[in-house]
Amino acid sequence: MARQERAIRTRQKILVAAAEVFDEVGYEATTISEILKRSEVTKGAFYFHFTSKEEIAQLILAEQVTAIPPIRPQDLALQEAVDEALLLAYLLRSGDARVRGSVRLTVEQGSFQDGLDRRVPMQGWISRSAELFEKAKANGELVPHVDVELIAKLFVGCFTGVQILSNIMTRHEDMLERVSELYRHLMATIAVPGVLIRLEFTPERAQRVYEAAAAHGRSGSREVDELV
Amino acid sequence: MARQERAIRTRQKILVAAAEVFDEVGYEATTISEILKRSEVTKGAFYFHFTSKEEIAQLILAEQVTAIPPIRPQDLALQEAVDEALLLAYLLRSGDARVRGSVRLTVEQGSFQDGLDRRVPMQGWISRSAELFEKAKANGELVPHVDVELIAKLFVGCFTGVQILSNIMTRHEDMLERVSELYRHLMATIAVPGVLIRLEFTPERAQRVYEAAAAHGRSGSREVDELV
Repeated sequence: MARQERAIRTRQKILVAAAEVFDEVGYEATTISEILKRSEVTKGAFYFHFTSKEEIAQLILAEQVTAIPPIRPQDLALQEAVDEALLLAYLLRSGDARVRGSVRLTVEQGSFQDGLDRRVPMQGWISRSAELFEKAKANGELVPHVDVELIAKLFVGCFTGVQILSNIMTRHEDMLERVSELYRHLMATIAVPGVLIRLEFTPERAQRVYEAAAAHGRSGSREVDELV
Repeated sequence: MARQERAIRTRQKILVAAAEVFDEVGYEATTISEILKRSEVTKGAFYFHFTSKEEIAQLILAEQVTAIPPIRPQDLALQEAVDEALLLAYLLRSGDARVRGSVRLTVEQGSFQDGLDRRVPMQGWISRSAELFEKAKANGELVPHVDVELIAKLFVGCFTGVQILSNIMTRHEDMLERVSELYRHLMATIAVPGVLIRLEFTPERAQRVYEAAAAHGRSGSREVDELV
């Protein structure tokens, strides 16, 4: 294994281990020594890649949106919005460490002094959603009065809460059903009827969306894809 | 001041101080000594009322729904559902310590071992919402196919996330606008048209709902009302 490749693998191992620990105990209670133990890397290797716990956390937050493998393009931009939500729900439910750790860091209120900027991933999702809704608007998929920015915020907020409720009540067991239900309702308020009846929201679709994305991205991560 | 009345006040002071600290630093980082300092009660007085930090937290969680002052009854059950959401949004935005601390405890993922049961307040909100939607159904306010339990979960999940997003992006500054927008969209998917056009969702309504509830409950809390 070439030196560079090994370095990339070590960095990935640290990131995944850190995300796991963040998911399990939260940002405050996470220690670098626990990350070292979990990732089985040496202190020296750790500090070659990162300077602090905060740096890793902020990196995981910054890459939250891009760490999700890209979905297969669809005719309808609104179907792409549904598919991205189903994919994220699928990854949270299946226990993907990187996604779960990152999402926990985001919604954790934190202490005023922990220094993590949770607006970064939230703004990332809002921008990503607004982009898809702009495309939908240009395609004539949206009813005329829709304010794309407001709707993007609404969808991101609702997804966040439905995810938290599903985690509290069922440890994400009913995540696909809840997100499917959410999108059925929200899409009914923004899509023109001819588009609405063509959208597929079923929980079963999530598995197919995931497989197509994983096949496309091979490694299941845009970032790894670029690095490897 | 009679001894019993003083005891009730001391208990209230401890609960409010604890909620403040929970809101600021989260459950894990909260210490009993910080609660004592904030509430200005003695250790002896504290342990007369409570045995542990966990007991206070669980009590705050259990009383989350009932700690909100009751809204003024409305002709439409769906307007009552809107008003309860606007009131909760108003209390979160205005920085009500009891509400904010309790809400933070709920949405904080916690460590697996912290022992707090976050399903209690969530189930409380789901039941409360389901109750209002059942009333709305009996009144003919809902479109026929609505599953009351699913809708209750959907509304509670969405409110939770819109609240978190508003807190992350604006420290609850835009809370009323976001909740108003949320209810406009969700109600459009469950209310019959003749009811939908009669519902008032404006952010300005929140202030009036709050004043009516505060006037009704005098102390602004159902629980205090019963105790005093």
